[in-house]
Amino acid sequence: MPSLEKIVISPIGYVKTKAIGDEVKDKSIISQIVINDNLIEALDGITGFSHVFVLFWMAQIPKDKRMILKVHPRGRMDMPLLGVFATRTNLRPNPIGLTLVELLKVEGNTLTVRGLDAFDGTAVLDVKPFDSWDAAKNAGLPAWWKKLEQEKEQKL
Amino acid sequence: MPSLEKIVISPIGYVKTKAIGDEVKDKSIISQIVINDNLIEALDGITGFSHVFVLFWMAQIPKDKRMILKVHPRGRMDMPLLGVFATRTNLRPNPIGLTLVELLKVEGNTLTVRGLDAFDGTAVLDVKPFDSWDAAKNAGLPAWWKKLEQEKEQKL
Repeated sequence: MPSLEKIVISPIGYVKTKAIGDEVKDKSIISQIVINDNLIEALDGITGFSHVFVLFWMAQIPKDKRMILKVHPRGRMDMPLLGVFATRTNLRPNPIGLTLVELLKVEGNTLTVRGLDAFDGTAVLDVKPFDSWDAAKNAGLPAWWKKLEQEKEQKL
Repeated sequence: MPSLEKIVISPIGYVKTKAIGDEVKDKSIISQIVINDNLIEALDGITGFSHVFVLFWMAQIPKDKRMILKVHPRGRMDMPLLGVFATRTNLRPNPIGLTLVELLKVEGNTLTVRGLDAFDGTAVLDVKPFDSWDAAKNAGLPAWWKKLEQEKEQKL
């Protein structure tokens, strides 16, 4: 019995960052996540974790771009044309961002994190601690992905 | 400039499983994800990945339980009382499930996966390939979490 009705989500907070444009892709960037005041208790104990997943809503993607079904990874024409569910493009039917970040500090309702690729003002949907179940050992990856990965390593 | 308006999401598909009750927590369980027919092209190339993240909507959590802010992990009273954002409980303001699953097979609009802890009929919000950025090496974890982890290993 599929439940295909629309789902309504209220943000739990928002992103604060000075990064603009492509700067948000820099994994060393430091941002804040400001959690709604009424949810502050829900952060108790989060400092025990060094890494958390942040789920956020990429509102910058206009509605007509959410029906793009195929892309070249990172917009590179030398990469194969792939379905959006086979990539991490932000052009997807539901533009929910998922990023693993380093949790540096928690003060009151504000988390300071490193590596969040979200723009200033982005609505945050959830924060979840990183768990051993979240990592795949020896994950199988396609050739195009390995090529991009190699290029990334050469740049570092 | 926080964007705190409500967000409306349309599912991209739904879960098919014979597992009921606590059976869905069994990591060996095999389920199907049936993607909406109009999105089938968005799956092209996904078989290159052995593991994908599934984002889903835990509609079984009633609205009044979404304002529970503190829980004992896995309901165990010998564990500390923690904020929901410091745990993976399904009692959270936005009950979005996030699970890494093994991708076994893709036939038409149907993905067969292992390890999806979602009930039959659950709305699926997104599918994303597992990426090296998603794994934290040497992640710092709280003592209560390590204790649960040890117990899990002893049971295997």
